[in-house]
Order: sequence, then C-alpha cells, then structure tokens
Amino acid sequence: MKVLVINAGSSSVKYQLYQMPEADVLAKGAVERIGDKESRLSQTVGGQTHDIEKTVANHEQAMDLILAMLVDPEYGVLKDVSEIASVGHRVVHGGEEFSGSVLIDEAVIASVEKFADLAPLHNPPNLTGIRASQQGLPHAKQVACFDTAFHTTIPEVAYLYALPYELYEKYRVRRYGFHGISHRYVARRAADLMGKDKDSVNIITCHLGNGCSITAVKDGNSVDTSMGLTPLEGVVMGTRTGDFDSAILFYLADKGYSIEELNTLCNKKSGLLGISGQSNDMRNLTELAAGGDERAQLAIDIFAYRVKKYIGTYTAVLGTVDAVVFTGGIGENAVDLRAMICSDQPQIGIEIDADKNAAASGKESQISTTSSRVKVFVIPTDEEAAIAKDTYELAK
Amino acid sequence: MKVLVINAGSSSVKYQLYQMPEADVLAKGAVERIGDKESRLSQTVGGQTHDIEKTVANHEQAMDLILAMLVDPEYGVLKDVSEIASVGHRVVHGGEEFSGSVLIDEAVIASVEKFADLAPLHNPPNLTGIRASQQGLPHAKQVACFDTAFHTTIPEVAYLYALPYELYEKYRVRRYGFHGISHRYVARRAADLMGKDKDSVNIITCHLGNGCSITAVKDGNSVDTSMGLTPLEGVVMGTRTGDFDSAILFYLADKGYSIEELNTLCNKKSGLLGISGQSNDMRNLTELAAGGDERAQLAIDIFAYRVKKYIGTYTAVLGTVDAVVFTGGIGENAVDLRAMICSDQPQIGIEIDADKNAAASGKESQISTTSSRVKVFVIPTDEEAAIAKDTYELAK
Repeated sequence: MKVLVINAGSSSVKYQLYQMPEADVLAKGAVERIGDKESRLSQTVGGQTHDIEKTVANHEQAMDLILAMLVDPEYGVLKDVSEIASVGHRVVHGGEEFSGSVLIDEAVIASVEKFADLAPLHNPPNLTGIRASQQGLPHAKQVACFDTAFHTTIPEVAYLYALPYELYEKYRVRRYGFHGISHRYVARRAADLMGKDKDSVNIITCHLGNGCSITAVKDGNSVDTSMGLTPLEGVVMGTRTGDFDSAILFYLADKGYSIEELNTLCNKKSGLLGISGQSNDMRNLTELAAGGDERAQLAIDIFAYRVKKYIGTYTAVLGTVDAVVFTGGIGENAVDLRAMICSDQPQIGIEIDADKNAAASGKESQISTTSSRVKVFVIPTDEEAAIAKDTYELAK
Repeated sequence: MKVLVINAGSSSVKYQLYQMPEADVLAKGAVERIGDKESRLSQTVGGQTHDIEKTVANHEQAMDLILAMLVDPEYGVLKDVSEIASVGHRVVHGGEEFSGSVLIDEAVIASVEKFADLAPLHNPPNLTGIRASQQGLPHAKQVACFDTAFHTTIPEVAYLYALPYELYEKYRVRRYGFHGISHRYVARRAADLMGKDKDSVNIITCHLGNGCSITAVKDGNSVDTSMGLTPLEGVVMGTRTGDFDSAILFYLADKGYSIEELNTLCNKKSGLLGISGQSNDMRNLTELAAGGDERAQLAIDIFAYRVKKYIGTYTAVLGTVDAVVFTGGIGENAVDLRAMICSDQPQIGIEIDADKNAAASGKESQISTTSSRVKVFVIPTDEEAAIAKDTYELAK
C-alpha cells in the first residue's frame, strides 16, 4: 500500500510517500512559502532532488502541485494518484479526546477545529492540509496522527496545574504535551534495542530539535512531559524560554510591556536566541562559542543544564530508569552537549562513553558505558515513518 | 549579649529576644493587625503567654509597644531597653548585593529600598521595621539578614532565565530565591547530624510551609533553588501555583483576564486552595481527604508529586546527594506527605523508615532506613536563631 504522509504548517506542506508495510520512502519533499510570490517545491526521489519555483497561493494549490510532482513522468514515482491508498496527517492538538491515530471523518474534523483554540498556530493549517488532501485524493483514506495522543496516559497528578480547578473544568487548561509521535517512536526503538518489551521499560526521551521536550515513559506509556498547555513550557528552545518564573510577566507588565509583547518575547525572542543575542541555532552557537563568544557558550550551558535537570526530574517520577534517549536535530548531533548533559551523575547512575558518544551522531547507538546503571541511546527520530505505520494499520 | 530579632511584615511585627551566645530565648511575641482598630500583642515568657489588645497605628507604635512589654515589670524580662545591644532584622530581598548579613548603615538602607522594586510586598515593611527599631533603640547595632543572601552562590547557569539577556542587564531579572536563612540553617544542622563538615556535603533542603521552596546545597553552598525572581516559582504552595506553563497567562488574557486578575489568580487563588477549592492549609486538606474529599486528596497528591520532582531535579544538579531535609510547618509535621514524596526511589536511592518517619514530627530526626543511599532528615527550622547568631557575630 502506498501511504502519503502530510505535515502541513502555516506556510508549508511537507510530505513523504511510503510503500507500506515495507516502510520504503518512494519520494519526499516540501512546498514552502505558500502564499508568497516565491513559493518553491523541492522533491527528492532516489537521492536526486528536483526543485521548482512557482507561485502557490494556498494549501489546495500546494496539494495539487505535490500530486502533480508525484506523477510527473520525469521526476515522479507514480503513474496515477489513485495509487495512493491512504494519507496520514500530522495534527498537533487532539485535546483529551484522541489517545491514538484515527480515521478522519466529519466528527474528527470538528474536534480538530475545536482544539484550534488550544493550538491556534498549528491546528488550522493541519486542518487546511486535511481538506486539501480530501479534495485532491477523494478516494484515499485519511488518517490523523496527533502530537498529543501519546501523552493522554499522563495521570491527573502530572497533567493538572496548581491553578483554580475551574480553569480545567471550563477551558481544559492542563498539560497536554507535544512531540508525542517522536517520543513514542524513540521509546519503542529503545525497548527494541534493549531486547525488551515496550511495555516493561522506563525511559526518559529527550526530543531536542527546533522545539524541545522531554518525556517520562513508564512501562511504555507517557506519564509526564515537559511541554504543557502549549509548547512554551519545559526546557530551553531556539526562541522559547521554557520554564521560568511566570511572575516575571507581571513584573515586566508593570514596566510597560503589553501582553502581546510579552507573548512575542517569550515565544520568539527568548531561548538560545535570547541568551546569546545572536542565534537560535545550536550549530551557530557551537561555532561562536568555539571562537570565544561567552554569551553563545552561556546559551549552550543553560540549555544543557536544563535538560540535565529534567532527566533528574523524570528519574524521580519513574523511580527506576532503564534508559535515556537523545533524539531530534540537536539530540542526534550535538556530541559535546550530550556529554555535558550526562556529566557527573553517579547518584542516578548515568555514565556515557566518550568514544561511543563521539561516534554516535545521526545513527542508532548506545553511548553509555557498560557500567552505567542507566543505558543512554542516540536514536534518530522518524515521525513520518511512525505516521505512515499508524496510517497503514488503520487503512489496510 | 541580648539580641532582639525582628521580622516585620506589612501588618505585623514578630520578635524574639535572645541571650547570646547561649541562644536562650528570653521572650517572644508578635504585634498583629497593625493599622487596624483591633491590633493585638501576644508575648510569651517562660511558657506563659500574655495578650493585650490595643490600637497600634503603625510600625513605630508597634516597636514602642514591644519595647514597653519587654521592660514591663510584670510580664517583661528586661529592666531597661538599653540592655538590648543589637537588633537583627529579617529582610526579604538583598538583590545580588548581599551575600551575607550586614550591619545596617545608610547605604544598606538605600539598597533595601532599591530592591523593593523586586519585592514590593516585603522590603517596604522590612524597612519600616528597621527604621522603627533605629528610633526605639538608637544605641543598638542594627543588622540585616537577607532571605536571598544564601542563594548568591547560585551560578549563572542556574540563575539566568532563557529570556532576552537585556532583561538581566536592565532590570536584573534572574533567579534570586528565598527562605535562604532557613535553607542555610537546616543544611548546616544536617551536616552536624551527619558528623560532617558543612562544606563537604551535598544536601537537598525542602522548606515546606506557607511558602515552599527547595534548594540544592553543594559543598555547603546554595547552587540552585526553586523560587525565582519572586516566590511564585517552584513547588506548589498554599495559594501560589508554583511552576506552570506561562503561556497559560496569554491564553487567559485572550479570554478576557487582566494582568492584575492573573497576578491575583496565580498568587492568591491557586496552589492547594486552587486545586482543592476549599483550603490553603495542609492540615485542613488532610482532614478533608480523610473524609473522602477527592479534590482535597488531589491537592495533596499534586503537592507531593511536585516536591518529588524537585528532589529528582536537584539530584541531577548535585550529582551526588548525601541527604534530603524536610523543614517548615508542612515539612516538619506531615508524616504521610513525607512518605509520598520519598516513595519508590530506588534509582536515586532514597528510602524512608515508616516508624522513624511517624515518630519524627517536630524534632530533629533521621527518618531514612539504614540501607538508604541518601539520608533523610526532619529538621525543625529556626530562622530567628539563625538571625540572632548572625547578629551576635556582627555586633560583638
């Protein structure tokens, strides 16, 4: 079965076409700058990338262009779009309703619309992607895979904030968590790598990329995660603060900042960018720090320190920990950062092997020493493959 | 030397008179409801308490009344106020300037005034207490003991938030931490109880009272603490949220809440009160929960869970942990809560003895099992004694 995986953002649609159940990637690509004059599509097939520039006004046109490219006689891989039997959509917010992936019907669409209140930047473009896909591929089964679904097993004691309870009753203000597709994927891979059943291991998964979140996985289920109602909470990110004293917002409001300015400040001007004053990109910061830039080094140090703290936090939550997993663009590649995060942990029992760590980037590897009580893995995430798998299971 | 310890709040002045260096408490008391018609003073000497009701218009009058009571022929303990050689004042915020207690001069007063911007509810009454004391006891040496001082050893990586760095440069927005007098006191007592030098132990101190904070003490120094710029951050408190996704404030602002309402909501209507909907008092909640009240139980469970998380967090920060200490009204007395917090911790190596825990309340006790890798203590805090000691050392 051919499964198309769609990840629709506000101005982009990323896609991958899979042959399932083999999980072979037949083609992958992205349409970017939708709505701009200078939109572009990039598609890779068999290691060859083909770029085209073309004005793409909206998500429907983006979907038409993707389908046209997939059947392009020269650059495509299909004879006809009818070969695509199902489409898996990444949807950011599924609220408390979706504990797994589902076939999309009108009720599902209504729920995704409803949860747009909780994810105003993400659910609307996800929905636009779903509708464009329904229009372009009316014969295909459409599946929604939620970033929140894996976290619906988090217990009340961990998802409820110490706010007036009415805010939960009235607005469903609670911890939801995100990156669930990635956390689930790498937790299961780690169980496989340890030769254990996924339901009998406790794992701390560190998804460190553009957004960063850390999850405590107990007996295969998410029991706590660092992102909350929104992706602002948790560890430090490229431009997001992560955890901080919320009363700072009251203090700054008193200095004349508006709510809108504070929102922008916390989500767009903070994190690695805010500390360093220069870049939200860990690779840039690493270069700057190597050149002697103290603020870049400080940003890296704070990032590592906060991840280290969460590993401790979730060690206490889990009681016993079998493994820590690093994934995401930073988690998979930043060797020195992994070393900093795992340094000096005799009480918890984490010890990584410098050589294994240095050799691990970008591929599945165990990087802990043989005497480390907690195993440490680098596992490249593959959210698209996870979505393809869920979609195949539901559509077959 | 006779040392008077003063803790001046917005509408109260608490005091204790010490004979130093013996640290004998000669008298203790409080003037409450200053500014009300129905102000009252309560003074205890040799186990006997004497109450008087009297209109006390301001802090100067409160100080006059305290001094009059201390020399009262029937209820007092002094012949003349000139016997008081020094006065130790608790001051909440000393900014980055004061790493220890200091003799008060005009420059110190100017700094305490300056830091009122960071502690608008606390520093102004503290200052009023200092001025009233200078007026009433012009011969005595005045000493300021800061709640923040113990935390000035926290490194940049832990005190800096991932906000734009300019906010630190311009407004000194950073983690300060509070309850430092208590954390320092119990950390040193714990070192004594272990027969170790205070500078060679790593301890996690849990001050759980009306306000709650947890501190990581490495080699005798605070290296991180859960309260931040303000006392809002950290674990759950009576009416304060502690940690939560700050973006909830943006979400609620969008629903029509004003900044002032959000400030009140987070500081006065959240925490144990917010979750339970009934009480901010752990004793009340324990009774309600025993009677089957689920929301009261939920508030207790969340409180315990958050403390447990911080013990994990600071285990990672410290690397190795010699002891965990419980102090403060809740920490010293809530047996079941201590058991919940310390439950199921084989990875970190915390195990408490149920019998020792049950017998420990209100007195210095080790409550961990003999096989626990981390020792656990209950240590009643004594901030007044710590202030008296600092004051004596500086004044002698």
